[in-house]
Amino acid sequence: MDAAEFRRRGREMVDYVADYLENIEQRPVYPDLEPGYLRPLIPAEAPLEPETFEDIMRDVERVIMPGVTHWQSPYFYAYFPAASSFPAMLADMLSGAIGCIGFSWAASPACTELETVMMDWLGRMLQLPECFIAETHGHGGGVIQGTASEATLMALLAARCKAIRRVQASSPETPEAEIFSKLVAYTSEQAHSSVERAALIGGVMMRKVPTDNSYAVRGDMLKKMLEEDKSAGLIPFYFCATLGTTPSCAFDRLTELGPICNEGNVWMHVDAAYAGSAFICPEFRPLLNGIEFANSFNFNPHKWLLVNFDCSAMWVKNRADIIGAFKVEPLYLKHENQESGLVTDYRHWQIPLGRRFRSLKMWFVFRMYGLNGLQSHIRKQVALAKEFESLVRADKRFEICAEVIMGLVCFRLKGSNERNQNLLKKIAKSREIHLVPCQLSGRFVLRFAVCARTTESRHIQQAWRHITQLTFELLQD
Amino acid sequence: MDAAEFRRRGREMVDYVADYLENIEQRPVYPDLEPGYLRPLIPAEAPLEPETFEDIMRDVERVIMPGVTHWQSPYFYAYFPAASSFPAMLADMLSGAIGCIGFSWAASPACTELETVMMDWLGRMLQLPECFIAETHGHGGGVIQGTASEATLMALLAARCKAIRRVQASSPETPEAEIFSKLVAYTSEQAHSSVERAALIGGVMMRKVPTDNSYAVRGDMLKKMLEEDKSAGLIPFYFCATLGTTPSCAFDRLTELGPICNEGNVWMHVDAAYAGSAFICPEFRPLLNGIEFANSFNFNPHKWLLVNFDCSAMWVKNRADIIGAFKVEPLYLKHENQESGLVTDYRHWQIPLGRRFRSLKMWFVFRMYGLNGLQSHIRKQVALAKEFESLVRADKRFEICAEVIMGLVCFRLKGSNERNQNLLKKIAKSREIHLVPCQLSGRFVLRFAVCARTTESRHIQQAWRHITQLTFELLQD
Repeated sequence: MDAAEFRRRGREMVDYVADYLENIEQRPVYPDLEPGYLRPLIPAEAPLEPETFEDIMRDVERVIMPGVTHWQSPYFYAYFPAASSFPAMLADMLSGAIGCIGFSWAASPACTELETVMMDWLGRMLQLPECFIAETHGHGGGVIQGTASEATLMALLAARCKAIRRVQASSPETPEAEIFSKLVAYTSEQAHSSVERAALIGGVMMRKVPTDNSYAVRGDMLKKMLEEDKSAGLIPFYFCATLGTTPSCAFDRLTELGPICNEGNVWMHVDAAYAGSAFICPEFRPLLNGIEFANSFNFNPHKWLLVNFDCSAMWVKNRADIIGAFKVEPLYLKHENQESGLVTDYRHWQIPLGRRFRSLKMWFVFRMYGLNGLQSHIRKQVALAKEFESLVRADKRFEICAEVIMGLVCFRLKGSNERNQNLLKKIAKSREIHLVPCQLSGRFVLRFAVCARTTESRHIQQAWRHITQLTFELLQD
Repeated sequence: MDAAEFRRRGREMVDYVADYLENIEQRPVYPDLEPGYLRPLIPAEAPLEPETFEDIMRDVERVIMPGVTHWQSPYFYAYFPAASSFPAMLADMLSGAIGCIGFSWAASPACTELETVMMDWLGRMLQLPECFIAETHGHGGGVIQGTASEATLMALLAARCKAIRRVQASSPETPEAEIFSKLVAYTSEQAHSSVERAALIGGVMMRKVPTDNSYAVRGDMLKKMLEEDKSAGLIPFYFCATLGTTPSCAFDRLTELGPICNEGNVWMHVDAAYAGSAFICPEFRPLLNGIEFANSFNFNPHKWLLVNFDCSAMWVKNRADIIGAFKVEPLYLKHENQESGLVTDYRHWQIPLGRRFRSLKMWFVFRMYGLNGLQSHIRKQVALAKEFESLVRADKRFEICAEVIMGLVCFRLKGSNERNQNLLKKIAKSREIHLVPCQLSGRFVLRFAVCARTTESRHIQQAWRHITQLTFELLQD
């Protein structure tokens, strides 16, 4: 395919994409097929000779679309949103064309520098303390990670390295392996599974901190565990707080937890993967109070800030902590500016070496929406969640299971878990809307997350009518 | 921006992309600017109100393009190629529109199933042993990782888990921390820096194996180190072999190394990040012989197989090894089909949780090029490297520093390292071509890698004329 054909096919693809998104409501949100459906539909081997673009696009409808869970459908209420917007898609086209791999400043200066400045823009939208802004002091700054899992892991690894060095400095006779084996990381029992996984990868113990009745970790609970573990000769070194937990969007109390971590030399990482986007609105910003105590902070614009996946925004207070943990410098990656102190080589900030030009997506989205447009998006989706909450509360058969603060509503039928499992099965089987469950205090709970950018009040009303209809059938049986 | 505007702006972007790639030779391949150039060119904060698409595209030329290292330019000979093709870009547009996050089968069945089948297609193109093909036995299979660094790390972590379990099974009284502290990983002294980094992340020792005079690891060298370390009470558990090293594209001898690893319970991971693409050509396939001994294998279609970044292809012989290492299953990620044994939940195979629909890129590229088209691309680039090699060999002032097997030529001016450093400085300053150095046997060497898809003989000839002109000036001084 040459550039001339690309011009033609590119236009066709732009139209296909626009058609897909304009008519997505007409597709069942969740596919109706069995595992292994795809293999029989296509050949067992790649073709020897080229096929045409028409052949492939026919197969997109025949093979792919029937198997897609339509995350961008306004009837998708599962997990958390996967952000999508036209400006982000346009920026991704440009990023693909430039096709640079931005592992160091020299590998593509624009790729690195736009990222640093976009992370400052975003940090300022959130009113992050100045210590996290690269422009201000040069000690802190931001980086785009692929996912929150990677941010959590990078923070844990940096904390591990820092803790080992600290203990070695004060007791040089202790072997590294012994220090390593005594390290303990902490997170909420409500934290995302990727936090536990980060500890497994890092080879350190992890303890789950119990939560209060709003599913939040409080200072006294963490303090008690830290003291117990220190008395037992262990070395607490890392606490991952969550703002907006996956099950119920609960908020750990940073203002209580931060001072405890700082006093105890425990790295505090704050994971606000979903909820972080809302902190651009002044009315939600108080939930981020206490961030000044954190060593690192992360949230996913690719969830709720209209920047297509992947774009996970991470800030560190002291870049030396994260860079110092894993700096390996072969000659083929060296460049003349790197020792100047002026440049950032982002490969030291992340697990992978290679990286795409992802900051273009942020730049396009921030400029084409403006801060006001982004705030409107957040507020609209929170209002839709509140609308759904009101519908649930008005129906005596149901109960709300956690305070509705952002775009997530946790609800259930009063009564047994089995009854709720049956309701969810009916919902899944109907394929009109898609949602997933969670567990709260031993109860099976339905999670209703407002996800698609195009979700409107009529979709919420329709979803609730559908749920109550299925409930009626269920209670009849 | 609504769908109607996206149709218009999408077309404009398609044209911008086509224009960029058609006229890329007219841009200096490497930017002429100082660190920190970008920040003064744009505002310090995001705008409150939306800006127009025209504003942004003007700034793409004003702010971004002057700071881009043009990896797709036919005058770019640095690092290794970053693959780019029109079919891959079209597929990425579709992937962005679908915007699904394929962490589990249920999260988007098509995303998971196309990936499994595409990895089988690719495995068959490489004539991988059947044990790596998912269709055949169901024990092995492939996964798309973001980068080779992540594949190396996942393999090391799986090997670490397997080794600890094995030792614990035979001596249950040994504490895990003690086993952990005795684990040793191995790789070539010529291996990529990301392998050393994987060991740092995994918290295990790593020893570098010396190479022969073709920069390859031989069986006897590894064997000697394993025996020494075992005698010292250590536990060798992981060896990362390289096919096509970054400095000089050397090939470790799998047929010698494989049996040694298998006998010693050492996980052999094979990293062919760059060279792997060439194994689709029968004439290069013998270099992969011995892969039947490997536990895992990885190469980057996003380097040399025309699939845009990111797409790193990894196969494992026994999927249970990699899945078992880090399986964490919260209720909100469970789905009804997962226990059937028929489905793949790729989140267990990788570091991140989220993942894009990347197999679409493979599908579009494999079908629109066909195997013959892909082989032609590899052969053409190898021929261009051979052409450059001939030019170097015909000039008595220069020497070739490693056998030219694929698209990389390592060469230098006879004489001091300083002389070669000065030549490279002149090349960098002129900004007509871009290449990076490496170190081989203590010598400073220039790496000339054929990178862009559109590189032709005339570019090679022009590059060499340019280098000899600068050499002439250098030797005059």
